[in-house]
Amino acid sequence: MSKNPKLITSISKILVANRGEIALRIMRSAKEMGIKTVAVFSEADRDALHVRYADEAVYIGLGPSNQSYLVGKKIIQACIDTGATAIHPGYGFLSENAGFAQQVADAGLILIGPSPTAMEIMGNKLSAKAAALKYNIPMVPGTEEAITDVNEAKLRAVEVGFPILIKAAAGGGGKGMRIVEHVEDFEEQMQLAVSEATSAFGDGSVFIERYVTSPRHIEIQVLGDHYGNIVHLFERECSVQRRHQKVVEEAPSAVLTPEIRREMGKCAVDVARSVNYTGAGTVEFILDENLDFFFLEMNTRLQVEHPVTELITGIDLVKEQIKVASGEKLSFTQDDLKINGHAIELRVYAEDPNNNFLPDIGTLQTYKTPKGNGVRVDDGFEQGMEIPIYYDPMIAKLITYGKDREEAIARMIRAIEEYDITGIETTLSFGKFVMQHEAFKTGHFDTHFVGKYFNPQRLKSSDETEAMIAAIITMRLFNRNGNVNAVEKSVTKISDWRKNRLKY
Amino acid sequence: MSKNPKLITSISKILVANRGEIALRIMRSAKEMGIKTVAVFSEADRDALHVRYADEAVYIGLGPSNQSYLVGKKIIQACIDTGATAIHPGYGFLSENAGFAQQVADAGLILIGPSPTAMEIMGNKLSAKAAALKYNIPMVPGTEEAITDVNEAKLRAVEVGFPILIKAAAGGGGKGMRIVEHVEDFEEQMQLAVSEATSAFGDGSVFIERYVTSPRHIEIQVLGDHYGNIVHLFERECSVQRRHQKVVEEAPSAVLTPEIRREMGKCAVDVARSVNYTGAGTVEFILDENLDFFFLEMNTRLQVEHPVTELITGIDLVKEQIKVASGEKLSFTQDDLKINGHAIELRVYAEDPNNNFLPDIGTLQTYKTPKGNGVRVDDGFEQGMEIPIYYDPMIAKLITYGKDREEAIARMIRAIEEYDITGIETTLSFGKFVMQHEAFKTGHFDTHFVGKYFNPQRLKSSDETEAMIAAIITMRLFNRNGNVNAVEKSVTKISDWRKNRLKY
Repeated sequence: MSKNPKLITSISKILVANRGEIALRIMRSAKEMGIKTVAVFSEADRDALHVRYADEAVYIGLGPSNQSYLVGKKIIQACIDTGATAIHPGYGFLSENAGFAQQVADAGLILIGPSPTAMEIMGNKLSAKAAALKYNIPMVPGTEEAITDVNEAKLRAVEVGFPILIKAAAGGGGKGMRIVEHVEDFEEQMQLAVSEATSAFGDGSVFIERYVTSPRHIEIQVLGDHYGNIVHLFERECSVQRRHQKVVEEAPSAVLTPEIRREMGKCAVDVARSVNYTGAGTVEFILDENLDFFFLEMNTRLQVEHPVTELITGIDLVKEQIKVASGEKLSFTQDDLKINGHAIELRVYAEDPNNNFLPDIGTLQTYKTPKGNGVRVDDGFEQGMEIPIYYDPMIAKLITYGKDREEAIARMIRAIEEYDITGIETTLSFGKFVMQHEAFKTGHFDTHFVGKYFNPQRLKSSDETEAMIAAIITMRLFNRNGNVNAVEKSVTKISDWRKNRLKY
Repeated sequence: MSKNPKLITSISKILVANRGEIALRIMRSAKEMGIKTVAVFSEADRDALHVRYADEAVYIGLGPSNQSYLVGKKIIQACIDTGATAIHPGYGFLSENAGFAQQVADAGLILIGPSPTAMEIMGNKLSAKAAALKYNIPMVPGTEEAITDVNEAKLRAVEVGFPILIKAAAGGGGKGMRIVEHVEDFEEQMQLAVSEATSAFGDGSVFIERYVTSPRHIEIQVLGDHYGNIVHLFERECSVQRRHQKVVEEAPSAVLTPEIRREMGKCAVDVARSVNYTGAGTVEFILDENLDFFFLEMNTRLQVEHPVTELITGIDLVKEQIKVASGEKLSFTQDDLKINGHAIELRVYAEDPNNNFLPDIGTLQTYKTPKGNGVRVDDGFEQGMEIPIYYDPMIAKLITYGKDREEAIARMIRAIEEYDITGIETTLSFGKFVMQHEAFKTGHFDTHFVGKYFNPQRLKSSDETEAMIAAIITMRLFNRNGNVNAVEKSVTKISDWRKNRLKY
């Protein structure tokens, strides 16, 4: 039971402190609840869709996020100016900033998210672990406290057993991480990790844990209200990653048994309970080859990949966040929740899979989204728009739903082929590679999927073959007297070919 | 058990003998099954989306359907030319033509649909009734056989009791229908009905039945295989109609009890069994104010409104049709089927609700479809395309899904507001009127909804008010020195206003 059960406060206007697809996604749910929305926008987002979609929009500064979307003061001021009484932070930006959460509370506004305290505890790996330990949540064997001393660290590493992982206490996104295979390399790697962590996060403390060689990333969605009710909405598997960041997510996981699902769910609820969690949150676990799982961390916000959970449970997570924030009790219990079907999400990034997933910024010369049964596209762009250089290069989330995993995969391939984007490279081709890969189809994969299986050259050459075939067919049909070189130049995209292959 | 259980025939290429949204919808499922598709197209559809989407496309004649989509010979020839072994007829055009079904079979091709015999029996109201009577299916009290003699008809009408309905045996779409309130009007109305039926259908025979004053149109989706297995996939309520044609459909119905649902389902399966039905079909019933139901007719094809059933059951009906046609057994039993959530479909027609729903043909100057959680748009158009004059003016089907009816309605309103179509009038505004109407919201409506409640003038004037407000706001923000008339002229659409209402 939370110490301060809330009174029901009717929320009639929400400011969405975010941009792109997630801003639109939040506004859609608000609209369905009859709640007005306020957008904020930077100079770079003047023509963005979330600005057009909102009932009102407030300019908050220049393109770089530290001059706009990260400036809490401006966002609070925009609330006051427009009469919005609640803020939805989305993900990224200020969404896990406990200081901002406190400022919002101090201004008499509602932050749609957990308490500043819960955010603060879960925002630090060590305090998060300490909170979870009270509930006997399984942890990867390793140090319980941050270490800076090399000799002490070495002793503990030997106890845990190699290979071990050195991790920055304040880290994220792979920074300040080092895998050490042999004891003789330990000292050098430890020093590198500490100095990297110091320069990246201003905090050089690290901890040491067993390195799981074939890890799967499984996370559990939780939802808590202000009356002590916490439920979980099953798992999402997010093991397909590039640069330690998720690209493909699905629910349910292909490998969990009902028993392990129940156990992980219980643990996730306990982790949430350890900080009196309210609203939507995600408890991340690592799952090893024996299906043993260990607590990794808790994300105290809406997750990018939340739609797969919405599709298999029928629960609109944003609506639930808003209801909880306004003081309502959860309207369902754990027993009411059931898994129906299977959902997969592919993050469509403006990145070139053939070039080490480097961002490929530019203009969406063609932009046509797939449609039909079981396809959901959450995006923030239209044909002709530019991808701004200041922000995460995610264009869209392509989500497919089917009665089972096989149908969801087939539908994802169909939807990827139907998606028509020109002007920039995207992760669509990579997504198709994943869906067609035997390891993914059979469910036998881990977070090393990309490193193990993905060969950009192969992807490229298959595209080139297709383009070549297209060129030849086009030439035969339309340009019997033309020369091959000219046609090859004009048919660089398979989509051109598609449009030109009428039989008569 | 069907007399000729089929061998499993692998279908690897399907010709879709249709156009528009339904052609695309069928091709999407085929693609997900790894089946190649062939489109056919008329002169008017040369640039249509279904032509681009297919693997191959065959030109079959001029715009008018009787020179292209209705010419069975050309369609069979296109199959032979492309090596397609099966035909999916969609709805409309040749989909319920038993003669065509026979020609397809004679050519050694597979028609994805029931047998020619089943089509023929159900295609005539009298033979359909006769088949259904073998299973004691409840019928509206009235004549069991067609009548042409006025005196005999009058005697039967008195037996049934007034008000009565005179209906053409070969009719449809309201033609050859007459309601008679009093016995003294009977003879005149009977003569009118007979002559109308004779000129419309070449068959003057009619039958007489009790007129249900507050009827709801409820239909049951059935699915049968070649091994005698027939299941139902619950009901669709299609009572919101204009000109006797459906505009809004939903599943499940707001009024059926589980008992009546089970009873209607059993009756529908029996009707299908009476003709050894294979594939997807729909048994239509009329439901009166006491929740008594009576058999109306069976549609021996995929229904326009089939998506609402797909959303609440998780079954892809087109895939099931294809599997049955290739000789597979149904992979589920009645007990496996469950209703999950609620779905509503709005048919977006190029029609002007303010002008008696007359078709409003033209160019889609703006065409942006809604997205997000629980929204499915099945359409066949893109921005800049023209609605051809030759065919049904349906642009799209907007389908929303929610955990309950209330959420599906809220989502429909949100999606309608998000849909951006300019250049032609559509039924979107009418759809919003329906969703917001108390009779619809509470589930207390029948097929007279439009006649009883819809006042086009009210719809119009509310739009005009909004436009006026928009004009004034726009003027204040952007044109402080302009004159009111000029601004009013420029802001004729509320969507213009939406795009221009940034706070700074």
